[in-house]
Amino acid sequence: MESENAEKLNLFKYSKRVILKDIVGRDDGGAGLLGRRVVIGGWVKSSREIKKDPPSMVDTDAVGPKDASCVELMQSRIPFLRSILKVLGGGDHRIRDKLDSVTPKPPQPSISVLQISDGSCVRTLQVAVDSALASPSQIMPTGTSILAKGILQQPYLPGKHVVELKVEQLLHVGIVDPDSRYPLSRKRLPLEMLRDRSHIRPRTTTVASITRINNALTQATHTFFQNHGFLYVQVPIITSLDTGGFSKKFQVTTLFNKETVQGQNIVDNTAGVSLDNIKASIKEKNRLVEELKRSESNKEALVAAVQDLRKTNELVAQLEAREKAKSETSLRTEKLNFSEDFFSRPAYLTVSGRLHLESYACALGNVYTFGPRFQAEESEYSKRLLAEMWMVELEMAFSELEDAMDCAGDLLKYMCKWISDHCPDDQKFLSKRIDQTLVDRLQSIVSGSFEKITYAEAVEILKQVPGKKFEAKPEYGFTLTEEHESYLADEFYKRPVIIYNQPKEIKPFYVRLNDDGKTVAAFDVILPKVGAVIRGSQNEERFDWLSPRMKELGLTNREYEWYLDLRRQGTVKHSGFSVALDSLVLYATGLNDIKDVVPFPRIYGNGNH
Amino acid sequence: MESENAEKLNLFKYSKRVILKDIVGRDDGGAGLLGRRVVIGGWVKSSREIKKDPPSMVDTDAVGPKDASCVELMQSRIPFLRSILKVLGGGDHRIRDKLDSVTPKPPQPSISVLQISDGSCVRTLQVAVDSALASPSQIMPTGTSILAKGILQQPYLPGKHVVELKVEQLLHVGIVDPDSRYPLSRKRLPLEMLRDRSHIRPRTTTVASITRINNALTQATHTFFQNHGFLYVQVPIITSLDTGGFSKKFQVTTLFNKETVQGQNIVDNTAGVSLDNIKASIKEKNRLVEELKRSESNKEALVAAVQDLRKTNELVAQLEAREKAKSETSLRTEKLNFSEDFFSRPAYLTVSGRLHLESYACALGNVYTFGPRFQAEESEYSKRLLAEMWMVELEMAFSELEDAMDCAGDLLKYMCKWISDHCPDDQKFLSKRIDQTLVDRLQSIVSGSFEKITYAEAVEILKQVPGKKFEAKPEYGFTLTEEHESYLADEFYKRPVIIYNQPKEIKPFYVRLNDDGKTVAAFDVILPKVGAVIRGSQNEERFDWLSPRMKELGLTNREYEWYLDLRRQGTVKHSGFSVALDSLVLYATGLNDIKDVVPFPRIYGNGNH
Repeated sequence: MESENAEKLNLFKYSKRVILKDIVGRDDGGAGLLGRRVVIGGWVKSSREIKKDPPSMVDTDAVGPKDASCVELMQSRIPFLRSILKVLGGGDHRIRDKLDSVTPKPPQPSISVLQISDGSCVRTLQVAVDSALASPSQIMPTGTSILAKGILQQPYLPGKHVVELKVEQLLHVGIVDPDSRYPLSRKRLPLEMLRDRSHIRPRTTTVASITRINNALTQATHTFFQNHGFLYVQVPIITSLDTGGFSKKFQVTTLFNKETVQGQNIVDNTAGVSLDNIKASIKEKNRLVEELKRSESNKEALVAAVQDLRKTNELVAQLEAREKAKSETSLRTEKLNFSEDFFSRPAYLTVSGRLHLESYACALGNVYTFGPRFQAEESEYSKRLLAEMWMVELEMAFSELEDAMDCAGDLLKYMCKWISDHCPDDQKFLSKRIDQTLVDRLQSIVSGSFEKITYAEAVEILKQVPGKKFEAKPEYGFTLTEEHESYLADEFYKRPVIIYNQPKEIKPFYVRLNDDGKTVAAFDVILPKVGAVIRGSQNEERFDWLSPRMKELGLTNREYEWYLDLRRQGTVKHSGFSVALDSLVLYATGLNDIKDVVPFPRIYGNGNH
Repeated sequence: MESENAEKLNLFKYSKRVILKDIVGRDDGGAGLLGRRVVIGGWVKSSREIKKDPPSMVDTDAVGPKDASCVELMQSRIPFLRSILKVLGGGDHRIRDKLDSVTPKPPQPSISVLQISDGSCVRTLQVAVDSALASPSQIMPTGTSILAKGILQQPYLPGKHVVELKVEQLLHVGIVDPDSRYPLSRKRLPLEMLRDRSHIRPRTTTVASITRINNALTQATHTFFQNHGFLYVQVPIITSLDTGGFSKKFQVTTLFNKETVQGQNIVDNTAGVSLDNIKASIKEKNRLVEELKRSESNKEALVAAVQDLRKTNELVAQLEAREKAKSETSLRTEKLNFSEDFFSRPAYLTVSGRLHLESYACALGNVYTFGPRFQAEESEYSKRLLAEMWMVELEMAFSELEDAMDCAGDLLKYMCKWISDHCPDDQKFLSKRIDQTLVDRLQSIVSGSFEKITYAEAVEILKQVPGKKFEAKPEYGFTLTEEHESYLADEFYKRPVIIYNQPKEIKPFYVRLNDDGKTVAAFDVILPKVGAVIRGSQNEERFDWLSPRMKELGLTNREYEWYLDLRRQGTVKHSGFSVALDSLVLYATGLNDIKDVVPFPRIYGNGNH
């Protein structure tokens, strides 16, 4: 019976279940909740079956644990599973009644011991289901969902868990269709093997932790800015602005709509992958196989990779034939005139929100925004860049370069501290699984200082590195490459580096010219391991400097009249910066590739889902 | 001298100034800060000049206030202003020294009394600048920015202000160029006159208040979800998904890039406005003029509108000629093949993030997101819809329709309560200026209940309205129009209405079929005045129902395999909804047109800035 004077246990209001974090995430591991009756829901992460002695059903008679391979289990019971698939597909709350009448009792009584996760924390809840309630073959496969009512008790068999849910009633079971090749039934698949399966990734403990850390970083950002009195402002995603040609842009159009281009032969290659991409993908997979062969630590993954590769090769042959057949087909779009486009002009996906933010800063003081920014760079194999990345951007009126650099440093410290404070379990898990230096690396930002050097100093250091050959020779006047930046943060200073006062030629037109007439008030914050996470500047507030600079660069003044107005009408000094939040997630999780930390990464040649 | 035991006064760390809210936003209006020396920054909202008696300069000798029309002032001093423009354009901290040497002393000593706003609150700080520091003509025009150091003292002349900053040093002045037609120098311009000047709008008290309320609503949203244990998840903006053809979509492409379509003649109509749009704009302006004529309350605005109209007419003539000349030019894009596009397939701007969110809910339980959603609807004059709108979306595992409706109601109550608690001054101001019913309307959501009716009941009510003719006849099986929804919330129930269980034909394919086989588990929340702000549903978790439904609608399964996987691999019941945040801002501010509450609204034919 449920004890009346038990501790309060929160119910998640909108699904009437207890969130697992409130049980296993407690300091006592749930011990204080023994005897409580709860409803929980989640997905099976792993499982085993414990046989009982046939005639006796008493709890103490267990034969002992026996690890059950899910794949074996599935294969042996496919015909049986098929027959109950329809019933389970219904996912009805009355499922247990139906099961009782349809399911034949399993030959030997047993208990299925499931490790259940609901995504609220790293730890799982151990759940014991008697075979009288559901056949082990239904509920044991990894990925199965259950919604169950039961009583929290001491585990049936002693182990590392403090409590176990003894299920009294299965309210819902969502089985894993054995034909659907559930990828996570192979254990410990490398994350890159899951990149085409964005929808399943969050069921891995690693991606779940990444998501919780991403959530925490987002929350830390809002809290930091609200605490400092910044106002959140929406800046537009679709824009007519061309920000000085520093990035390749996506165009937004409705000209392809069938109504507009009537009678035209639109080649809609819905197969979705071009020959070139497939070829590139093979190259990447070959590399992976080689790597796996060398390590030899993970045979199962190797076999899977080889199978994948074979399938890709088949695909290529098919595609090659189709591409050939298609090469004559073409689209002729008559009268593709942007005055007929949705916005009556060419429109783009925004590369940066800072110019728009300025107009709000020049009225409301301190403002920030958080949104997606886009770059149509065709760099397929970057581990740090995506076509769509989320940026935090801010702008402060009455503020100069030094202020923006201070703010950037404080923000980074605040975010790293927040992760330490709010995600200790995720940190612990990722340190163990992914990157042992993780906790130290975060702590070094919280309590350490940033190295601050001018661009000129940075170039001098890079030029004088003994015995190191950079792919691009460091030279004053050229943008520092990823390799240059990494060298400074990872090897030379071994800590975060702020590089400022770049030559005007390598920064956007709106950055404020320094008194030397050559450099501008820009800065980049480079972190070890992930590179530049913040780029910022004090922007030019002087009309008489900005206007000629724009003419020099051929920026049509008409399009930028509003931007110049801000200088004509009560101009103020102002500075700000952009934070690549996705890069910070990379930093805070220890992963190596940004494609593994962003839920649905958009890269050249691949915008699936 | 600054008193040492004075109350603590926060400095905004990144610009070394005191935020005005911390002075005039205090309960005592700033009285407790008398005698403190501070630096403040902001923009002039209004001003007047007080003459001193020529020989005597003592404080008590004021002749009395005299209202100065800024426009008059400007006109009389243009030559003088020109000469100092260059100096002021520099905006140097040493400006005062320069001013002292360049500026001739004004003929008669006076004090400029400025009302300064820095966007942190509705109230302004009164600032007194002696003409010995700066000529009134420089600093008095509305929109001028100043950064000033001074001492907080009792006002020079008694009035409604408790404190006044007596300026000791002007650190920066950003003048308003008299040639730049600063629009806010005409007082009380209707907001619709400012729609083409998005960059100046936030300097009006109304738009500043809207921004603060938008900020508060965003913050309330994050707080609500974090308090309930939801995880924030990024869903993609660019997607290959076609969500069942319920909305017109924008396509994202790089095919127009010069490199791709080499040698082609791209007609880039950078003039940006088509003939049709201009014509539409004239129609709208004519309407405005008529309205203004009828009211006759605002002569200045009327004159301005007529001038604008005349200019538009000229533009038309020019455009007409140009369009004619252009009509033969055309673009021939050879081989426009989507396999050559950036993502090797057609890609779109997302209409809804809920499908993507599902894959995270089906692993992590309760998730939410906040991002832009896009619809390429060519409805030019909607007051409630934009091509780009920000949505809050959430998805909950183990959750049903009823749960989602409960959550929607709680969220709305929480948001309205948050506004009441956090923005009392903005509420007061907007009640006075825009909509007297505002405070009651918010309170009615906080403490009132929502009417909950089925779609079938809604249609019955609408059919039986006596003496009311709807533009579209209400009929079972058709989507309710804006007019229908408004009638139910504004006139029939006079409070928020939730309409649920719509026929399956008028809702997306993924909504869960009810047991009657005809309706689906969807719901809409309709608020008085602004219409539908939330649309939600319990989504179909049963593979055997979803898959045939998708085939029925011709949705290629290949593209949706991942979505079906979620049903094959541990499916759970789940529900969620989308909140149109911009519509809530409309509700919480009392404005009538969504174009006035979104910083840079994107509408058909207009994507400026």
